[in-house]
Order: sequence, then structure tokens, then C-alpha cells
Amino acid sequence: MLAKALLPELWTEILVPVCAVVGIVFSLFQWYVVSCVKLTADHSDSSPSEDGKNGHGDYLIEEEEGVNDQSVVAKCAEIQTAISEGATSFLFTEYKYVGVFMVFFAAIIFLFLGSVEGFSTKSQPCPYDKSKTCKPALATAVFSTISFVLGAVTSVLSGFLGMKIATYANARTTLEARRGVGKAFIVAFRSGAVMGFLLAANGLLVLYITINLFKIYYGDDWEGLFESITGYGLGGSSMALFGRVGGGIYTKAADVGADLVGKVERNIPEDDPRNPAVIADNVGDNVGDIAGMGSDLFGSYAESSCAALVVASISSFGINHDFTAMLFPLLISSMGILVCLITTLFATDISEIKAVKEIEPALKNQLIISTVIMTVGIALVSWIGLPSSFTIFNFGTQKVVKNWELFLCVAVGLWAGLIIGFVTEYYTSNAYSPVQDVADSCRTGAATNVIFGLALGYKSVIIPIFAIAVSIFVSFSFAAMYGVAVAALGMLSTIATGLAIDAYGPISDNAGGIAEMAGMSHRIRERTDALDAAGNTTAAIGKGFAIGSAALVSLALFGAFVSRAGIQTVDVLTPKVVIGLLVGAMLPYWFSAMTMKSVGSAALKMVEEVRRQFNTIPGLMEGTAKPDYATCVKISTDASIKEMIPPGCLVMLTPLIVGFFFGVETLSGVLAGSLISGVQIAISASNTGGAWDNAKKYIEAGASEHARSLGPKGSEPHKAAVIGDTIGDPLKDTSGPSLNILIKLMAVESLVFAPFFATHGGFLFRIFS
Amino acid sequence: MLAKALLPELWTEILVPVCAVVGIVFSLFQWYVVSCVKLTADHSDSSPSEDGKNGHGDYLIEEEEGVNDQSVVAKCAEIQTAISEGATSFLFTEYKYVGVFMVFFAAIIFLFLGSVEGFSTKSQPCPYDKSKTCKPALATAVFSTISFVLGAVTSVLSGFLGMKIATYANARTTLEARRGVGKAFIVAFRSGAVMGFLLAANGLLVLYITINLFKIYYGDDWEGLFESITGYGLGGSSMALFGRVGGGIYTKAADVGADLVGKVERNIPEDDPRNPAVIADNVGDNVGDIAGMGSDLFGSYAESSCAALVVASISSFGINHDFTAMLFPLLISSMGILVCLITTLFATDISEIKAVKEIEPALKNQLIISTVIMTVGIALVSWIGLPSSFTIFNFGTQKVVKNWELFLCVAVGLWAGLIIGFVTEYYTSNAYSPVQDVADSCRTGAATNVIFGLALGYKSVIIPIFAIAVSIFVSFSFAAMYGVAVAALGMLSTIATGLAIDAYGPISDNAGGIAEMAGMSHRIRERTDALDAAGNTTAAIGKGFAIGSAALVSLALFGAFVSRAGIQTVDVLTPKVVIGLLVGAMLPYWFSAMTMKSVGSAALKMVEEVRRQFNTIPGLMEGTAKPDYATCVKISTDASIKEMIPPGCLVMLTPLIVGFFFGVETLSGVLAGSLISGVQIAISASNTGGAWDNAKKYIEAGASEHARSLGPKGSEPHKAAVIGDTIGDPLKDTSGPSLNILIKLMAVESLVFAPFFATHGGFLFRIFS
Repeated sequence: MLAKALLPELWTEILVPVCAVVGIVFSLFQWYVVSCVKLTADHSDSSPSEDGKNGHGDYLIEEEEGVNDQSVVAKCAEIQTAISEGATSFLFTEYKYVGVFMVFFAAIIFLFLGSVEGFSTKSQPCPYDKSKTCKPALATAVFSTISFVLGAVTSVLSGFLGMKIATYANARTTLEARRGVGKAFIVAFRSGAVMGFLLAANGLLVLYITINLFKIYYGDDWEGLFESITGYGLGGSSMALFGRVGGGIYTKAADVGADLVGKVERNIPEDDPRNPAVIADNVGDNVGDIAGMGSDLFGSYAESSCAALVVASISSFGINHDFTAMLFPLLISSMGILVCLITTLFATDISEIKAVKEIEPALKNQLIISTVIMTVGIALVSWIGLPSSFTIFNFGTQKVVKNWELFLCVAVGLWAGLIIGFVTEYYTSNAYSPVQDVADSCRTGAATNVIFGLALGYKSVIIPIFAIAVSIFVSFSFAAMYGVAVAALGMLSTIATGLAIDAYGPISDNAGGIAEMAGMSHRIRERTDALDAAGNTTAAIGKGFAIGSAALVSLALFGAFVSRAGIQTVDVLTPKVVIGLLVGAMLPYWFSAMTMKSVGSAALKMVEEVRRQFNTIPGLMEGTAKPDYATCVKISTDASIKEMIPPGCLVMLTPLIVGFFFGVETLSGVLAGSLISGVQIAISASNTGGAWDNAKKYIEAGASEHARSLGPKGSEPHKAAVIGDTIGDPLKDTSGPSLNILIKLMAVESLVFAPFFATHGGFLFRIFS
Repeated sequence: MLAKALLPELWTEILVPVCAVVGIVFSLFQWYVVSCVKLTADHSDSSPSEDGKNGHGDYLIEEEEGVNDQSVVAKCAEIQTAISEGATSFLFTEYKYVGVFMVFFAAIIFLFLGSVEGFSTKSQPCPYDKSKTCKPALATAVFSTISFVLGAVTSVLSGFLGMKIATYANARTTLEARRGVGKAFIVAFRSGAVMGFLLAANGLLVLYITINLFKIYYGDDWEGLFESITGYGLGGSSMALFGRVGGGIYTKAADVGADLVGKVERNIPEDDPRNPAVIADNVGDNVGDIAGMGSDLFGSYAESSCAALVVASISSFGINHDFTAMLFPLLISSMGILVCLITTLFATDISEIKAVKEIEPALKNQLIISTVIMTVGIALVSWIGLPSSFTIFNFGTQKVVKNWELFLCVAVGLWAGLIIGFVTEYYTSNAYSPVQDVADSCRTGAATNVIFGLALGYKSVIIPIFAIAVSIFVSFSFAAMYGVAVAALGMLSTIATGLAIDAYGPISDNAGGIAEMAGMSHRIRERTDALDAAGNTTAAIGKGFAIGSAALVSLALFGAFVSRAGIQTVDVLTPKVVIGLLVGAMLPYWFSAMTMKSVGSAALKMVEEVRRQFNTIPGLMEGTAKPDYATCVKISTDASIKEMIPPGCLVMLTPLIVGFFFGVETLSGVLAGSLISGVQIAISASNTGGAWDNAKKYIEAGASEHARSLGPKGSEPHKAAVIGDTIGDPLKDTSGPSLNILIKLMAVESLVFAPFFATHGGFLFRIFS
């Protein structure tokens, strides 16, 4: 039983940070390549072809047009600056409010956790083994608070950097689109990779450093150490919540508002520069889809690592002080960075996109390649990073696990992610029949479009749920909650690639917007539209990953919470648990009601403002006068800041209120209920929205006989499709993707406050009994 | 402990059937009063004023118009006959298919349950007390099959009679509308009461007779007796499933199809006789909303009685053979019939509706009055029908319960029902701000209308879930699963009144349709529209009751299943249960996807047919040629018969497959998961649909300054509202209300097959371990 992992501790200590640094360097290299596309108008050669790698695309030369049109370049640069400034300004405003929350919540963590033993500085018996002595609860309070702040700052930084990269890349993608769809694809994809690698490596590095610093104080008390580290996950996820909700409201208020007046009433194209909400719309893509999503996936990554570490610390790794095995979750992530690095080369250097129809397969291949290589990587890490046999804490008992069993746990998560990705693609890509059926239903108007779209979303839940259920069953059966946590890590191990293809979507969307605003030709717009259509699908795939991993993560956190709170069983057949389940399952609805209503109200305001500008600014429709973009940006900013507070409070306060007043059993029910209900709504909302968006694009692109029979733009079926797209906006970009944060955030928060609830929880029931 | 109930057994044996017969007689009397409105044109006095009760409405005389227009009467009679024949013909077709299923499933029940002890005819040790001898499993198989068939037949009969009454009443309501809105209201309400009382009394009587007949064989073996009786609930609910799904697809395919072409494309009013789908639409109201809902509520009633009886039979009532206490659930229902009888008099005889704005309060008062009186009734029954103290089976142990505690259990269910009713009214009536906000959002088009409507539905879940949670907590804490079962009975105890106001809705809807088709004046149509708007709200309230009670019923059945299957705990933290929860929570989505897609596809076919008729039949738009109603009726019939099979199989086969292959733990998870997730979707779908319908009616009626600013009919906001209404149709009338059947049907089916699963279940896991 005391066998140690093959990999010596020193090597672990070196390998993890080295992989993180490799990831960061690779990310910076990609950034350098993107930066070779010049946005200043004074260079005649604006392509990165001088590095010799992208210069062999001579057969694309006949597609090039207006490459040397300096005024277009200047215009693109100007628009990019406007978008970048808008996004930066919004994020700073958002972070100001969120900063206040962070300080306030940090204080709560310190006070609540410190109060567990009355702020005593004396060492106490350990929670899991009363015969040993552990660090005082006050230390947990202090270090949890610190790691909370660290997680929050890293999350904010991840989102902010992602946004910066995206706004840096969008105009460059537009300019490259003049040289062909393949060139534009590479720029967009490389920029996504910058974000993906920076985020994955950064998250790993900060976590690694924090563990090592905390270890100086905690020494041998690994339980206390990793309990405190959980704050990192809480910090990361709570920022992600505000990022997703605030950003989601911002982007969709602008998008819906712009579409309703521009496309539906005034019949001008999407992203037309005459539309006053167009800058707000493009800013929104960057703050919502990029910054929000970056924070979100960082949060999932941090939480699944924390969940695994907490369970491991009370298992034989912690008892035997096997540091390599203890850091198995970090080793997986390190391996993931290397695997994703190789995978990226397949898209950027090994093969090249030559036609529109190759875009989606190229992105899909990224998923397949990374999954296949990673499977080998996991096998390697499991072989050298784990003892051949060890014990895992399983709700009061210790369960014997073999290293190959744990390999299967990680692998099942990884492959479940791939399946979820493929199913999502099938239901949201307009290359397959589900979206085409939805498009076809537009013949009979918006109502049937909506009915078919909702039905599609509901149906798309089936296979992902089975995939999640199978991975839970396998990983849970092999290694209890540790198995579930590493299955989540397995799904997230290729996060760098996942984020790259996910960020690619909004970058292409923006590139299209810039092309339209800069008045570039119809042909360029067609190319960016093709990139964007693939982007809608990849965005849906990214959301699928985020949701699937969130389900596994929150189950693992839930298990850790139950262990820490000292509950033996969570029996559905007790009144406390069953009411928790019922109310927990309701929370995603409450949350969605808030966020969707917020988008609706903000969009109404936006519509009024846009209409006002069209009606009162003379020459706006003719293009002779400039609209007042700033007012629309302000409406989105104000609405999102104001409206993100109530849903934020719902999520952050529910565990505290339920835990304190009703106790840990009811809280367990709430966590389980919101998990099993939230996953379904999140998947169906994301896929419904993605399908509507692509059904609209399907009609617009008119690539098949069937599609042309529904089009062209402005036809009755197309109008119906636009209505569906607009309804889908808040579903797929606001409420849907926020729900996965809801479920995991409540779980990680419960885990952090578990010592407090175990001591002071269930206030109401104690009064009455 | 051996104290008996105050009420002697003989009195119980007399009181229950007497109350049932009183209900049936009252129902027949109401029918007689309705029949006094003559539909034959040869009587000059067509009002029921000769009975002296309704003749004091002289102040309404100035509203009367065209009372003596014999051609209108003839026309109404003709349309009514067409609707009635259409509905009868559809139901017979449906019952033919359902009959095949019934025979097939009866065989499954017999074979599966008989196989438990290898079809042995020898007595066996009792499942709960091995020291005693019980009847053989073969007897349970035989009697379960018999009671299944009885339940199915009673359910079918309930639906069929309801439809007959509704189609008998609709033209009479139209004719009375000429004499004022109050007169029409009373006819519609009385007809609803006919259905309500007939159904409640009939269900009670059949159940009572069955118990007494089975007792002849079972004698002292009450466990076996009431286990067999559970088949009654299964039979009732499985017919309800097909009734709701088949009827729901029928009605909404016709409704959506008729609206999309008639209202949106051709700009003709709803129910215009030129619309070829108009007869199918009106038939649909009767087969879907009336027959389906009748079967549904009958199913809930039967199941909650069975759940309570099963739990009681293994509690001290069964052990001590206290027949009065054993029949407590039936006593509650008997009292309910008397209370509802008194309540009905308040609407029909004690006060009278004089203006449109009094309709909704009158219906709401019915709920309040019945709840208040019933509370007293429950107290009385609990006092005389129960021992002052007794024990209840609580998952392996016996829990001591006082009679006043059980009173609280029933009462909390009753009042939770009232709260759910009020919340539903608030969110779906256009007298309050939620629906008005939705109507207002139509200003900016259909997209915002849909976003606001979905948000409204999500939000409307919050309070009902808390109400259900509180009643579960109270009843569960006091009296375990018996408490939950009687809480469900409490909520359903006023079923006669609930059904009356529920059936009132479709009757008014049909009355409006007949007025339009018979070419009656605008004024008459306004009156029936006002009745119908209130009907939409009451229909939503009825669905709220159905869903709330279904949640309680299925929890009680789930508890009985767990007891019978011999499971000690249903621990969320075991892999078998957690995957069950996840997959169970997904089932309502799968089911909704199927039913919504079915409605969508059938509606597309209907649209094509209606368009074809408008395009090919000369003179149709001008009203000189008659449309081909029969083809539309056939499309609805074929679609609903074909499309009800897959969702039906999903619900009926899931418990069998999961129980057999994965065992009772996973099945428990599936039941709990579908319960907690299904309730939410069902409530939100029903309320979203109701709100959209009434937002449209709000704009059409133009009763306030705000409403007029959005109208009139045909304005852009009104068109947006029509789209919302159309989307809401399948949500509120097909998928939403079917979901409550899904959750309770799977629970009752699991309970019936529990002996089989306990013996042969978990096939897959046994292979692998």
C-alpha cells in the first residue's frame, strides 16, 4: 500500500512549472505570428508571409483583392480601436463593481470560516482523523481567503487577456480574409490558441505556486492545505459568474437591439455601420463570449483540480505524503498543454484550409486529434504519476484503486467530452438535418421555427446526458468522488484546444462585423460569414464541454462537500433532502428567468434608442451622418452592471442561506437538484440558440437547392429565421452558459463553507426541535 | 395503539357509496338543467327560465338579441353535431389503438407479476412480515391485471363522458350568450360541474366496489389486497397518458395549422367557418382539453388513493384491521364531493354574474370557498375516521402519528393547491402585470414576446415549487409517505370543483367558435371571448393543480415503491442512483421534444392542406363555397394516433427497462430525477403558454388604454402576440400537461412491478459482478 509513484517528487516539482512555461511561451509565439499582420497602413506588405511558413499559398492569389487598399486598412484599424476601447472600458467598469463584491465576499469567507472555532489560534484535532492534530480553523480562514482572492484575480486576468487578444485579432482576421478564407482562418485560430494556452498555462502556474507557498506554512497538514486551496476554485468561479452574466447581458442586449431595428425594421444588413448599436454589439462579443467564457472555463479547470486535490488529500496520497501522486491532477493538466500544443500545429502548420467546406472538418479534427493523443498522455501520466495501487476516501471508508482504473476514469471523461462535442455539432451545424429541418420550418413562419427549435434543443440533451451518466458511473464505481473529479479533469485536459476553437468563433464574428463596417466587398463578407457559421458550431461545442465538465466538477465538489460536512448519506427519502432537491431543481429556472428578462428589458431600451437615432439624426439611413455609438454602449453597460446583481446574489447567497438556516442535508439536496436540472436546461438552451443562429445562416448562405428555396435575405422564411435567432441569443449566450457556473459555483461555495455549516448550520431546524 | 376510529365500519361502508351516488345524482341534475336550453328550433322559448331559478335576470334583457332567430339555433345545432361527431369518431379510433395496448400491457402485468414466484399457486410468506402467510404472487398478478383493466376502462369512460357533456353544452352556451354573459357563464359552468362530479363520484364508486369485491378473495390479507388495487391507478394513468398526448397533438396540430394560415396569412378571424381546419380545431378542444384532462385528473385521483391505501395497509390500520381508518382516503374523497356540491351552488344559485369582470372572481371564489369548507370537512373526517393515535410504515420502521397531525398533512396539501392556483392565475391572467408586460413586449416584435414569455414561465415556477416543498416537508415529517399521499389527496379533494372550472374553459372556447361559425353578431363573440379569456386562466389553474398533485402523488408512489422493493435508502452518493437521477431528469426533455416535434410536423401538414384548399377551392375566401373539413380532421386524427406511440412507449417502457436491466436503485433515481425536473418544465410550459394566449386576448379585447395602444387586431404587436400564442399551444396543451402524467405514471408502474424488479431486477449489474 505504501508503494510510491514512479516519478520522483523532484521531477514533479520541475515538470509542472516547465509545462506551464512552455504553454505560455507557445502562446506568446502565436501572438507574435498574429502580430505580423500589420494594421498600420504604411507597410505595403501586410501579410506574415515573410516568416516563410504561410507563403506557400500562391494558388490562393487569384482570390486576393484590395490587399493594397490602404484606406481599408486604416478603417479597420479605427474600428478595431473603437471595439477594443469599448470592451476595455466595460471590463474596467465591471471589474470595479466585481472588486467591491470580491472584497466583501473575502471578508465573509474569513469571518465565517474563522468563527468555526471562535477565531482560536490553537491547533485542533483533524476533521477526518481525530487522533491527529491539524492547523487551526483560523488558518483555513486566512488561507482560503487568500486563495479566493488569487483565484478571482487569475480569473479576471484570464478574461481580460482573452478579450485583449480577441480585439487585437479581429481586424487582422478581416484583413487576411482579403487573401483568402484559409489565411483568415489561420489568424483567427492562432488568436484563439493564444487565449487557450495562456489561460490553461496561467491557471496551472498560479495554482502550482500557491500550493507550494501554502505548503511552507501547512507543512505536513495536507488536509488543511488543500482545503484552503479550494478557495482558488471559488474565486475563479465567482468572477466567471459575473463575467458570464454581465457580459452575456451586455452582448445580447446590444445584439437583440441592433437586430430588431436594423435587420427587421430598417432592413439593413447585420453590422451595418449606420446601426447605432453596432459597436456595442461587437464589443459585446468580446466581453461576453470571450472574456466571460475564458473566466468560465478557467473556473471549471480550477474547481476540478481543487475537488480532486481535496479528495486526494484525505486519501492514501495525503496519508502517505506521496507528493507526485497528490499532484496527479496538475500532471494531467501539464500533459494536456503539451498535447494541445502538438494538436495546434495540425491546424496551423501541417495542413491548410483551402475552401469554406474545410473549416468545420479542420476544427473537428482538432477535437479528435487532441483526444486521441491525450489518451496516450493520460496513460503515461497514470503509469508514472501514480502508485500501482492506492486507497481513495469514499464517504467514511477507504476504497482500493489501481492506477489503470484511474486511467480509465480520466479517459472516460475525455472521451465523453468528445462525444458531447460531436452531438453538439450534429444538432447545431447546418450541415446536418436537424438545423435544416428547423430552417425548413421557417416556411410556415416564426411560430413553427420556434417550436421546432425548442424541440431540437430538448432532443439534443439525450446523448450528452447518457455520455455524462456513463462517465459518472464508470469513474464513480472505480474511484468514488476522486474518479469523478479526474474524469472532469480529463474532459478539461484539452482545454487549450477547446478554448482555441471556442474563441475562434467570436473573433470571426467580429471580423465579419469589421468587414461590413469598413465597407469591404460582398466577397470578403461571405468569407467571414463562412468562418462565423463554423464559429457558431464551435461555440456550441465549447458550451457543451463547459456544461459537461461542469456537471462532473460539481458532482465531485458535491461529494467533497458531503465528506467534509460529515454527512453519511444523502437519502432522497428524507424530507430535508427531498425539498432540497425540488428547490434546487427550480433554481436554474429562477436564474434563467432573471437573466432572460434582463436581456429582454435591456434590449427594449436599446431598441428605443436605436429607433430614436434613426428617427432624429438626419442622414443616418443615407450614410451621410454618423450615429451616436456611445449612447448604445452606455445602455448596454448600465443594464449589464445593474442586472447582473440579482442573479449573482441568487447564486452566491443560496448556499449560505440554505446551509445556515436549513443545514447540510437540505443543502446537499439543493446542490444535487440544481445539478441534475441545470445541466439539461443549459444544454438545451445552448443548442437551441446555436441551431436557430445557423438555421438563419443556412438560409442566408443559400449553399444548397433547399436553402435557396427558403431565401434570399428578406424573404418571409428568412424573417422567421431572424426571429428565431433573436430569441436564441439570450438562451445561448446569457442564460444557458451561465447555468453551468450556477451549478458548480454553488457546489464549490458549499465546499469552502462546509466547516462553517457543519458547526453552525441548520439554524431553523435546531430552533424547532 | 389499538384504539379504533370513532366511525363504525358499517357506517363507512354506507357513507362512501352514498356520497358517490349523491355526486352522480347532482351531476345528472346539472345535466338536466343544461338540457333545458333547447337546441331544436321549434320551441320559441329557448331559455331554462321556466324552472324559476334563472328567470330573475330581467336587467339583462336589454342585452338580449336574436333570441328568436330560428336559423341561428339550427345552425348552432348543426355545428355542434359536427363537432360532437368528429370528437366521438376520433375517440373511438384512439380507443381502438389504446385498447390493443391495454390488452398487451395487461398480459405483461400478468406475466411479469406471475413470474415472481414462478406462477406458483401456493401461499407465501408476506413481504413485510415473513412470519405471516400471504396470498400467492399469482393472485397479485391476476387481481392487479383486473384492477388495471378496471382503472383503464374507468379512465376512458371519464374522458368520453366529459367530451360528450362538453359537446352537448357548447352550442347551448353560445345560444345563452345571446341572453347575456351571465346566462352563458352559468351554462358553461354547470356543464363543467356535470363532468367534475361525474368523474369524482364515478372514480370513487368504482374504487370502492373493487376493494369490496377483492376483499372477498383476499379476506385478511390487506397487504395483498391493496397491492393489487394499485393496478387501478396504473390503468387510469396509462389511459390518461394516451388521452393527453393523443388529444394534445390532435388539438394543437389543428389549432396551430388553422391559426397560421387563417389568422396570419389570410387575415380571417379565429374560428371563421371559411377556415378548413376550424372543425378539427373545435373537435380538438374536446378531445384534448376535456377528455385528456378528465382522464388525467382521474388518474391522479386514483393513484393518490392507491398510494395512500398501499402505505396504510402495511401500517397499523392494516395490522389492526381498522377498516374505517384504512378507507380514510376514500372518506376524504367522499367529503370532497359533498363540499364541492355546496361550493357549486355559490356559483350557480347563490350569486349571479352580471358583468364580464365578475367572471374571473366568480371562478376564483369557487376555489376559495371549496378550500375553506373542505378544511372543516377534513378536520371532521380526521376526527371521526381515524384513531387518535396510530402507526405508519416508514421505510422499515413504524412511526407514531396523531390524528390531528394527519389532518395537517391533508390540509397542507389542500392549501398548497390553492396557493398554486392563485400564483398560476397571477402569471396567466391578463388582469395582472406579468401578462401585460408580455403583451407590451410585442411592441418590439415576436422575438421579445417570446423571450419575455419564456422568462415569465420560468419565474412562475418559484412559488409553486416552494408551496409543494413546504407541503412535502410538513406531510413527510408528520406521517412519512402516508402523509405525502394524503397531502396529494387533500389537493385533489376538491377535484369536482377544480374540474368544473377547468372544463368550463374549453366549453367557452367552443361556444365562441360556434358563435363565429354560425355567423352570430360581434357582440355575442365578445361575450364568449370574455368567457374564454377567463377559461384560459382557469385551464392554467387546472394544470397547476394537476401538476402540483402529480408531484405529491408520484413522491408518495415512489415511497411506496421503495418500501415494496425493499430498498433501505436512496443515496444520491451512489453511482447507481446518481446516474438514475441524471437520466430521469432528462426524460421530460426527451418526451417534450417528441411531443412538440409531433405537433410541429402535424401542423405543417395541416398548413399545407389549408393553404391547398384556399388556393384550389374557388369561392372559399368569399364564403360562397364550403371547405373540406373532413380532410383536416383526418390529418389531425392520423397524426395524433401515429405520433402518440413513441412518447407513450418512452414513458411505459422506461421503468420496465431500467428496473429489469439496472435494478431498483437506478430506477429510484430515475423516478426522483424525472419528478423533480418534470414538475418545473410542466409548470413553466403551462404558464408560458397560458400567458401568451391571454396576452393576445388582452390586445384583442383592448379593455384598457395600454391594451388599445397595442391593438387593434392585425396591428404589428398583435401579429407578434399571435406568434407567441401559436408557440404556446403545444407547450400548454400538449407537452406541459403530459409531463405530470409522465412522472406519476412511471412511479405507479414501478410500484406495480416492484415485486418483479425485487426478484428479477438489475440484470446487467448481476452479469458484471
